[in-house]
Amino acid sequence: MSNDLKQDALDYHAYPTPGKLSIELSTDALTARDLALAYSPGVAEPVKAIAENPEDAYKYTMKGNLVAVISNGTAILGLGNLGALASKPVMEGKGLLFKRFANVDSIDIEVDTTDVDDFVKTVENIAETFGGINLEDIKAPECFEIEKQLIEKCNIPVFHDDQHGTAIVTVAGMLNALEIQGKDIKTAKMVCLGAGAAASACSKLLITAGMNPQNIFMLDRQGVIHTGRTDLNKYKQEFAVDTDRRTLDDAMEGADIFLGLSGPNLLTQEQAKKMAPKPIIFACSNPDPEIAPAEALAVLDDLIMATGRSDFPNQVNNVLGFPFIFRGALDIRATRINEEMKLAAAHAIKDLAKLEVPQGVVDAYGGDPLSYGKEYIIPKPMDERLLNAVAGAVARAAVETGVAKLALPEKYKI
Amino acid sequence: MSNDLKQDALDYHAYPTPGKLSIELSTDALTARDLALAYSPGVAEPVKAIAENPEDAYKYTMKGNLVAVISNGTAILGLGNLGALASKPVMEGKGLLFKRFANVDSIDIEVDTTDVDDFVKTVENIAETFGGINLEDIKAPECFEIEKQLIEKCNIPVFHDDQHGTAIVTVAGMLNALEIQGKDIKTAKMVCLGAGAAASACSKLLITAGMNPQNIFMLDRQGVIHTGRTDLNKYKQEFAVDTDRRTLDDAMEGADIFLGLSGPNLLTQEQAKKMAPKPIIFACSNPDPEIAPAEALAVLDDLIMATGRSDFPNQVNNVLGFPFIFRGALDIRATRINEEMKLAAAHAIKDLAKLEVPQGVVDAYGGDPLSYGKEYIIPKPMDERLLNAVAGAVARAAVETGVAKLALPEKYKI
Repeated sequence: MSNDLKQDALDYHAYPTPGKLSIELSTDALTARDLALAYSPGVAEPVKAIAENPEDAYKYTMKGNLVAVISNGTAILGLGNLGALASKPVMEGKGLLFKRFANVDSIDIEVDTTDVDDFVKTVENIAETFGGINLEDIKAPECFEIEKQLIEKCNIPVFHDDQHGTAIVTVAGMLNALEIQGKDIKTAKMVCLGAGAAASACSKLLITAGMNPQNIFMLDRQGVIHTGRTDLNKYKQEFAVDTDRRTLDDAMEGADIFLGLSGPNLLTQEQAKKMAPKPIIFACSNPDPEIAPAEALAVLDDLIMATGRSDFPNQVNNVLGFPFIFRGALDIRATRINEEMKLAAAHAIKDLAKLEVPQGVVDAYGGDPLSYGKEYIIPKPMDERLLNAVAGAVARAAVETGVAKLALPEKYKI
Repeated sequence: MSNDLKQDALDYHAYPTPGKLSIELSTDALTARDLALAYSPGVAEPVKAIAENPEDAYKYTMKGNLVAVISNGTAILGLGNLGALASKPVMEGKGLLFKRFANVDSIDIEVDTTDVDDFVKTVENIAETFGGINLEDIKAPECFEIEKQLIEKCNIPVFHDDQHGTAIVTVAGMLNALEIQGKDIKTAKMVCLGAGAAASACSKLLITAGMNPQNIFMLDRQGVIHTGRTDLNKYKQEFAVDTDRRTLDDAMEGADIFLGLSGPNLLTQEQAKKMAPKPIIFACSNPDPEIAPAEALAVLDDLIMATGRSDFPNQVNNVLGFPFIFRGALDIRATRINEEMKLAAAHAIKDLAKLEVPQGVVDAYGGDPLSYGKEYIIPKPMDERLLNAVAGAVARAAVETGVAKLALPEKYKI
């Protein structure tokens, strides 16, 4: 970022009031009668109704549209462990995106502990407040155990966006990239640089979508994760393959896909050149990708390139997923967000990229035509069709898999 | 409440959307550039700033204007322990009042545990999220220990409104009532029916304001709290007096003040008649007071009567306190709300009742004249002068007692 942009970002957060969200009244509260209904004595009525039937909390409080964005700040963006409080602007940013794109009310909760059990107990204790929980920027491997335990303990959707949101949008783009390159997901060979939360979730969802686990070389800082290694935690062990490849150089030989979920500038042009024809590079480290698009495109013909950046084509952006996934889950009061719902979201995003793009969206991105192809494999965040497409797909999958407490709303019927 | 009012209250909570609050954007988030500043990549700048200087959270996030209203639902209104979730409409109601009266952003957190340590640990873990914590509807005696521990562990104001908010408004009205009746707080004899959180806090603040502890007969369900009792917890022991009075009948003999913080219809006309001349009755059980105003006024000449109800004169209403107390505390970034700040708030409310009431306020309450006297000892919630009067008094007291991190804002200088 330029220094100007940095200062603009600070100013944006400081003005007109500190932060990006406010709490507002959704009802009239002007007259004494309003206040008698809103508080004493009227409020006793919804209290008694909820005490009798807990589901009435969805009828009389904001619970049903309220998602907590919860972090302990141990893995903030690409910045690492800066503590709970420092994560607050990111969490408020998620809240801004939730509201802006899907009308979901969202409040951030920073949990000041790095202990898994303490974190889980804290969130479990406050979970009733919310209609859903979006976990965010929690480092691996703790994030896996935290999410698993909270899914078991809470009867509302719990979703670690760094894992599943990233995975859903990545898989959507990847399926389109494979189609355009004429490659079959069942036989495509992938190098996944990075072995954290996002890498694990992306690889798992790609496997669910048809990829052969044996065709994935995942690398952590020690190199290729293979069955001969003795330093792997149980989460990495799931991805250990029987191979004699050890380094990124080894792994890149003949790869169809490079998926970067690691850090800036970790892939060289020389390494990129080892890929198979018609390669696919998703260099998602943000703000600086594993390899700059210009560098990659300079050495690879027919490349499809995606990054996490908004200033290059094919931005893999979680905002294409999480607002709409929760919108769909909240709208049918899902008790969880299961694999079927995630895959349904990925397919909805994938399919939308193939439709003609409205002129308004084209204009919002500078006027260059956007049509399905190497430079447009993923829809743009400003595409308002995402809301019904993704939320509807998620809601339908929830109903079909029996995790919905409400019937499918009319707007999502197809 | 009439059945019509009950249904109106339920409808009020259900429409136009469930609940009474929503989360809204306080910044522009329309263009791609807005989003680049609000989230990726711009958000990294405030994150880094806060990591370096935690106080910057007040500059770049909503923390500084955000109060958590936290309950476990063990003492909801007059309804008792109905559980955390059932308390949600009340907590959202506090949020509505915070915003409506003092522009404080407030979110409710329902903590699903009745264990003191578990509750404290949970709130401590999430406290960094907020600029202040308003505890609410937590039963005694647990509320005392919870508040004490949280004040020690958090560096933001922690305030149990059922105790201190009630006490502040009660003391404000009581000081005026004593003045009008020509009684001296130092010699006035009080019966306090109820020995819970509010009773304890009201009695303590009255003692701070000059009342003699020996002149307070506090009663719990077992009768007068006296030094001969062996069934008292440490919080009740503080109020044990050496007396041979045992029952409410005994206690009422010659009392100047009856303060009811107990339950409906617990004071009979016969008991009220035992009071000294020019009596004061604050019957604050809600919605049904310890004795109905009409019944009390029928048997006592020169009575000053206050209740918790909005449909009688002299409503002791916490909304006169908490929104402005937090407004003042947040505005000078107080690290706590100390006794001096509480007493300053009480005096500010008391003094406001003596000023001429603006016509707009008179009109808002039906047009009957409001002037300082037996039927107007406490300002009305719609009196907009409360904001600066109470918040200013709290802010000045915080600065004077050294708990303010910021200098006194211009608007509060007198």
